[in-house]
Amino acid sequence: MRALVFDKSLTFQPRRADPPASSGDTLVRVRQAGICATDLEIVKGYMGFQGILGHEFVGQVERSSDKELIGKRVVGEINVVCGRCDLCLSGLSSHCRNRSVLGILNHDGAFADYLRLPAINLHVLPDSVDDDSAVFVEPLAAAFQVLKQIKVDDRKWVTVLGDGRLGLLVAQVLCDAGCPVRVIGRHPRKMALCEKWSIRARPLADIVPRHDQDIVVDCTGSSEGLELALQMVRPRGSIVLKSTVADGKALNLAPVVIDEVNIIGSRCGPFREAIAALAEKRIDVASLIHRRMRIEQGVEAMELAGQSGVLKVILTME
Amino acid sequence: MRALVFDKSLTFQPRRADPPASSGDTLVRVRQAGICATDLEIVKGYMGFQGILGHEFVGQVERSSDKELIGKRVVGEINVVCGRCDLCLSGLSSHCRNRSVLGILNHDGAFADYLRLPAINLHVLPDSVDDDSAVFVEPLAAAFQVLKQIKVDDRKWVTVLGDGRLGLLVAQVLCDAGCPVRVIGRHPRKMALCEKWSIRARPLADIVPRHDQDIVVDCTGSSEGLELALQMVRPRGSIVLKSTVADGKALNLAPVVIDEVNIIGSRCGPFREAIAALAEKRIDVASLIHRRMRIEQGVEAMELAGQSGVLKVILTME
Repeated sequence: MRALVFDKSLTFQPRRADPPASSGDTLVRVRQAGICATDLEIVKGYMGFQGILGHEFVGQVERSSDKELIGKRVVGEINVVCGRCDLCLSGLSSHCRNRSVLGILNHDGAFADYLRLPAINLHVLPDSVDDDSAVFVEPLAAAFQVLKQIKVDDRKWVTVLGDGRLGLLVAQVLCDAGCPVRVIGRHPRKMALCEKWSIRARPLADIVPRHDQDIVVDCTGSSEGLELALQMVRPRGSIVLKSTVADGKALNLAPVVIDEVNIIGSRCGPFREAIAALAEKRIDVASLIHRRMRIEQGVEAMELAGQSGVLKVILTME
Repeated sequence: MRALVFDKSLTFQPRRADPPASSGDTLVRVRQAGICATDLEIVKGYMGFQGILGHEFVGQVERSSDKELIGKRVVGEINVVCGRCDLCLSGLSSHCRNRSVLGILNHDGAFADYLRLPAINLHVLPDSVDDDSAVFVEPLAAAFQVLKQIKVDDRKWVTVLGDGRLGLLVAQVLCDAGCPVRVIGRHPRKMALCEKWSIRARPLADIVPRHDQDIVVDCTGSSEGLELALQMVRPRGSIVLKSTVADGKALNLAPVVIDEVNIIGSRCGPFREAIAALAEKRIDVASLIHRRMRIEQGVEAMELAGQSGVLKVILTME
């Protein structure tokens, strides 16, 4: 099959071996897949991953022990879990100690003609969620995770730091939850998108941090995001960290202690809520698509996705 | 008056001017004061403070607009607040935007014959709390703050990282709250103290971090504490940061996001609970006193307090 593979360098391979027919796993023919900041970080060395990249996808089930799934259009949760460790047994299976993660950790990903996942990971899509929307289910679920971790209401002052792919999803999710959110960005075109959604947006250059925000969600994808968030959040306020970044940065933690700030890491989220929000057209993802490219152009597509200001680049396999 | 002053360097001054008679402030004759890690950090440049050091004290009220206070033995809360800013008005006065902080920020401290504080900051001590115990009220209150920020119970696995002055207070407070706490330390003498209190203690060298603790309280006073805490805490667990450190350290924040860890900064705490715990002899502070030295020996006392393994050094003014 065709696949986009990272192994020290990134290459398109026209004749990669098909996934092995592992017992229990379901074989999915990928229709299209989205490029995410995590993919770009992996290519810089994050997670030390080697193999087929990609974890945001929509596909069609080809083979499965669950006969009901065959032929269905699906998206898939990315954590492949053991179901037996202390974390799985205590309800934290997305943190399974023995997990592999699609396209991120010990599990070939979605930038290929086929992938395999356990049937339990798959969600059948309603017809109202088209393929273009479906590639956003995984990152949109990650955006919904913020609502699981902090309490928002219409009196909270909330800032989303970063107008990238994830930042614009998080802002829409918070807005949809009734929270008057503000986006701090760098790209006029993306901030114009916010205005279209009735979300306030301000350029980073205009911001004087005032330690006055109840909640700051760091979606900068940069190791400098936390430092800026610490200047914006009020004492006893919360910072939600959404960015996974390969490099570390020297950080003075004294402000965390002095201001008694709460920093909350946030990763994968609820697929069902993301699918429902897309089915009900509560979140606009169509505007986030920058370009659709064929998997043969995968290396160029990754380069494009890494450029400043570029939103979602979708790889198509059909 | 006599005073221990930091102004680029630390000096004992035998004839420092007395505090000005500010309207509304109460004049306290200091009896004794404790040296804290924050004092040692200030001398390294933390907070850019210049003036008289010290914020853990017991003294006697000499002059006050509150006549009831005169002659009383008191301890004092260290944040001097405006009462008018948004944070004061929203019940977060310890984070007052216009605050000064005794011996830490724009307010001369307690390593002197006299200090001044607003009457509202002072707590009259019961006879059951002697002067030696009283100098621990401020740091013990900071230890009690942990209980205000996280929920503990007898099924939680809690580790206190660091067997220094603050770590040993935090461990006792958690133990007193019914939580089976474990201390990770470096000094056999301090770990022996833990055993005396029926608190488990393990040497740092014996620890293999397993990402299995529900809560880790970082009292290392080191910028490396958080990194170790991140290796010990379980996914979705909590890390309470108690250390204010002058230097920053490069830190890879990806584990915070991947494990969805909650990091909570923790500073000053409830004086009343600390005084009550000392009055009821629920916390052993007598064992934490390393040496008592006269204020004239203040420079040497600070050096001693900065040595590895040394617990509380008390400066006496009488």
